[in-house]
Amino acid sequence: MYLEKIESPADVRAIPVDELPALAAEIRGALIDKLAAHGGHVGPNLGMVETTIALHRVFDSPTDKLVFDVSHQTYVHKMLTGRAYGFTDPERYDEVSGYSEPSESEHDHFVIGHTSTSVSLACGLAKGRDLVGDDYNVVAVIGDGSLSGGEAFEGLDWAAELGSNLIVIVNDNEMSIAENHGGLYASLAELRATDGMSPNNYFRSLGLYYRYVEDGNDEQAVEAALAEVRGIDHPVVVHIHTEKGHGFAPAVEQKERFHWGGWFDKKTGESLLPAGGEPGYEELTYQALSAAMEADPRVVVISSATPGVMGFSPERRAAAGKQFVDVGIAEEHAVALASGIAAAGGVPVYGFYGTFIQRGFDQLMQDLCVNGNPAVLLSFCDSARSMNDVTHLGIFDVPELSAIPGLTYLAPTCKEEYLAMLQWAIAWQEGPVAIRVPAAGVVSREAAAPSDGESDDAAWPLMPEVVATGDDVAIIGLGCAFPIAQDAATMLEADGMDVTLVNPRVASGLDDAFVAELARTHKAVVTVEDGQLEGGFGEKVARQAGPFGTRVRCLGIPRGYYDRYDPAELMASCGLTPEGVTAAAKELLA
Amino acid sequence: MYLEKIESPADVRAIPVDELPALAAEIRGALIDKLAAHGGHVGPNLGMVETTIALHRVFDSPTDKLVFDVSHQTYVHKMLTGRAYGFTDPERYDEVSGYSEPSESEHDHFVIGHTSTSVSLACGLAKGRDLVGDDYNVVAVIGDGSLSGGEAFEGLDWAAELGSNLIVIVNDNEMSIAENHGGLYASLAELRATDGMSPNNYFRSLGLYYRYVEDGNDEQAVEAALAEVRGIDHPVVVHIHTEKGHGFAPAVEQKERFHWGGWFDKKTGESLLPAGGEPGYEELTYQALSAAMEADPRVVVISSATPGVMGFSPERRAAAGKQFVDVGIAEEHAVALASGIAAAGGVPVYGFYGTFIQRGFDQLMQDLCVNGNPAVLLSFCDSARSMNDVTHLGIFDVPELSAIPGLTYLAPTCKEEYLAMLQWAIAWQEGPVAIRVPAAGVVSREAAAPSDGESDDAAWPLMPEVVATGDDVAIIGLGCAFPIAQDAATMLEADGMDVTLVNPRVASGLDDAFVAELARTHKAVVTVEDGQLEGGFGEKVARQAGPFGTRVRCLGIPRGYYDRYDPAELMASCGLTPEGVTAAAKELLA
Repeated sequence: MYLEKIESPADVRAIPVDELPALAAEIRGALIDKLAAHGGHVGPNLGMVETTIALHRVFDSPTDKLVFDVSHQTYVHKMLTGRAYGFTDPERYDEVSGYSEPSESEHDHFVIGHTSTSVSLACGLAKGRDLVGDDYNVVAVIGDGSLSGGEAFEGLDWAAELGSNLIVIVNDNEMSIAENHGGLYASLAELRATDGMSPNNYFRSLGLYYRYVEDGNDEQAVEAALAEVRGIDHPVVVHIHTEKGHGFAPAVEQKERFHWGGWFDKKTGESLLPAGGEPGYEELTYQALSAAMEADPRVVVISSATPGVMGFSPERRAAAGKQFVDVGIAEEHAVALASGIAAAGGVPVYGFYGTFIQRGFDQLMQDLCVNGNPAVLLSFCDSARSMNDVTHLGIFDVPELSAIPGLTYLAPTCKEEYLAMLQWAIAWQEGPVAIRVPAAGVVSREAAAPSDGESDDAAWPLMPEVVATGDDVAIIGLGCAFPIAQDAATMLEADGMDVTLVNPRVASGLDDAFVAELARTHKAVVTVEDGQLEGGFGEKVARQAGPFGTRVRCLGIPRGYYDRYDPAELMASCGLTPEGVTAAAKELLA
Repeated sequence: MYLEKIESPADVRAIPVDELPALAAEIRGALIDKLAAHGGHVGPNLGMVETTIALHRVFDSPTDKLVFDVSHQTYVHKMLTGRAYGFTDPERYDEVSGYSEPSESEHDHFVIGHTSTSVSLACGLAKGRDLVGDDYNVVAVIGDGSLSGGEAFEGLDWAAELGSNLIVIVNDNEMSIAENHGGLYASLAELRATDGMSPNNYFRSLGLYYRYVEDGNDEQAVEAALAEVRGIDHPVVVHIHTEKGHGFAPAVEQKERFHWGGWFDKKTGESLLPAGGEPGYEELTYQALSAAMEADPRVVVISSATPGVMGFSPERRAAAGKQFVDVGIAEEHAVALASGIAAAGGVPVYGFYGTFIQRGFDQLMQDLCVNGNPAVLLSFCDSARSMNDVTHLGIFDVPELSAIPGLTYLAPTCKEEYLAMLQWAIAWQEGPVAIRVPAAGVVSREAAAPSDGESDDAAWPLMPEVVATGDDVAIIGLGCAFPIAQDAATMLEADGMDVTLVNPRVASGLDDAFVAELARTHKAVVTVEDGQLEGGFGEKVARQAGPFGTRVRCLGIPRGYYDRYDPAELMASCGLTPEGVTAAAKELLA
């Protein structure tokens, strides 16, 4: 047993070389035990066991600084820097985050969760070191999948100008989340096939020194290569070939499934999740898109390395043929690509996690929306009740997307409305449409689908649904927060109040005239959303209602970085419960 | 005279080869005549004369599609596609925009103004073409300077997977706006030095076919190379070496000065602008940063290819040495670099045009602000009264930057306050600070600098300045819109009203308690800002004041893409004049 005795990297360095395979085996065992029961990034960490041991034997962390890209592969690093308890003691599994976290340890230098940032951040550390007059090593670790992101390119390109110590470890496991996409990957394959000797070398073309390590799961081989570059006086790329999932056959065989996994059998890898149940939004989206692709060969589905969020398994991607495009981790390109496809008469549908589309903000503004091209965007996991890691929050989408002129941002309240809006958006030719896919569980609300009369209007999703009409208070519940507003309306009606209940449908804002009429005819207005208040939906209503003197209360999440919070607690603390909405309404009316 | 007879590219193709030099000379003459008198992009267009003629002789626009990166080099393209009047007739100079503009011509396919987008947009056209079943050529033109932007890399990397016709023209004039930065440029130089034969080839490393043309100002050489790739069935890069400013000696000799220029002598290139006058914000910023760098060797100024906006001429950059970093066109990298520098104890100050920081939105969110690192950001030209091309609007900065948790976004009202805030921000260690550099002329307002008593508070910029106190209406004027609010207050006081006048100082929002007190003690509140309403400053005030029933009116620019507008007219139409603010206040009080 080694892990329980490792309090710092010095303890790793003290382990005799011939005992390191036993340490690696113990680490793998702990990883598999925890991940099978708890969930987490499986393949990336299993593949990095030996390289991480070597990093901590060669470099002197925290004096030398290690920066891990995405940092989903830092579990081994955490085990070797005093945090093994978070992997060996089931009671303490949740005491370590799944990412790099400076508040946990002096060995972590940044909160990181999005891809392709490590080289630039490390360049910054190195430049700061030089300005201050220090002389430690700065090491960036980046996976091959992250290399397709523009920020990683920008960092590598600039690194050549640094002129001092910077060591970039390219952890090449031949995979992104799914398979890699881009011409770069063919030349990485050439480098692997030639033991790094191919003259066709992306890194050298950016002015960087380069060396190759074929077996990145041979700790001694990696250690030898790192020892040679330690203290180097210029930037260098060390290209290390590892195996994703190494040491756990199911993760090696099913690399995409085990990129992130949990609740599996520790021996066979078989899923222990209960089968069946209602289809989620991934599956509903796939079914709808599959039908749309079949009906119209111009429809093309775009993903930026996360095809699973739209239900596109490898088999389904293959079946879709040229109607499915995965651009790899390249959100900027994905948005511009969608704009170009629409300009040429294609029908692009680009689906993504909301947290990652931040990478494409300028492209949404410039490449797509100023051109008014009719692309469809599907944003997933936008809600305070979705992902709760600080780097993956789902609360910023409305401030971001509703700031963009020309972008219609729809927020369906339930699955029926979502599917109707998706079908509508694919047919809509007047401009780009984004849809905030509900992210707080699949809710059914049949009345939300347009009635026959309503759907005669070609632009029905652009008009609010007035569910009930009263004259005391108007409650406007956005998207997947609508059910909270609805329950509050029921409670208030039971208390004898007359309530207007509105599903606004459009997250990017209601008509001035509609809000003015609400303001004129109600004593109070309450808005309910499960995203950030600042820049959000409610503030637009408050502005529009402002001149009328009606009382307005906006309920939502105050601007902030929240980390691994309890969603129900956060929602309740913000008044985002039926009781909270009811209380807010009564306070305004008092 | 050729230009007056060219109505479409067919007319260019009809010109005998031996007369093409005369056409090129006529185009250059028209360019110099217009730009000397009117202003515009000089060097980029002079360098592209022959290549643009060749493009229109080889390809059949608009069936074949030409997509120009940034599109600041499209003046020649415009002359050859029926828009010569915009360059030959001084009365009609303003009838053509300075960028690609589909509303002008079927030969323009996108509104484009930011860099590094053409390859991705062209990939989209090509993919759309393939889905629809068309078979035209798609041509992207991109300058060497734009290659450092991550989006260009993402597009090139993905292009290799397209599997059908795409022709990427790399117009290599050995310059960005200023000199290029990045290791890539050394390998481009190798390619130029070896007539394209160097094995160290960035484009090939991304899986692309490649050919080189040494003299891009030899129309027949370019035409021959393009003819060989016309109709090609896979993506190819044609690397063309041109001379920026070709044919106009001053622009060749002073490439940075003549990237964009105007009001110069047509023979000597000497500036015809009146010398002297008060220093603008560029010069004020340079003086302040220069002093800060001298006082503290840890201070480093960062630019992403626009050093001029902070007054850093080539000589000043050289003098700053390692305390000045130009990362090239690479905003994503610049933000992450600043975060890393701050983490290592350096003091980074990153200055940019507000319109371009959209490219770094995710990096601001993730690389910088979630880490709370104390970088200083200076955002220039943010105002409806600044740049008025639709791709360069200065109205989106508050919605963007104020949506980011942990980022303090200051909006000084005048030069005294700006310089005091800049000094404060450089010393502030609590987190990242951005400053909205005033952008509507240099205004002096000595009272705005903190008084002795006030500046004892280490956090004075975080507190609003209450300039006057009354109890009828509170007027809050943000940043460079403050003078409008101030003049309105004077007018209202003259009409017998009691006015509270507030300089909020912080664009990202006032304290809840401060706004609540304003709302409780005034009948009405008016907010005044010269940026977008949706997601802007005023909406936050409207939300905070909402529960109190006071009447609130937010004045600002409604969400939209405005193009080549008259700033005074737009401001007036939005009520952003002293008279407009006065009228709004009176209406609320009525």
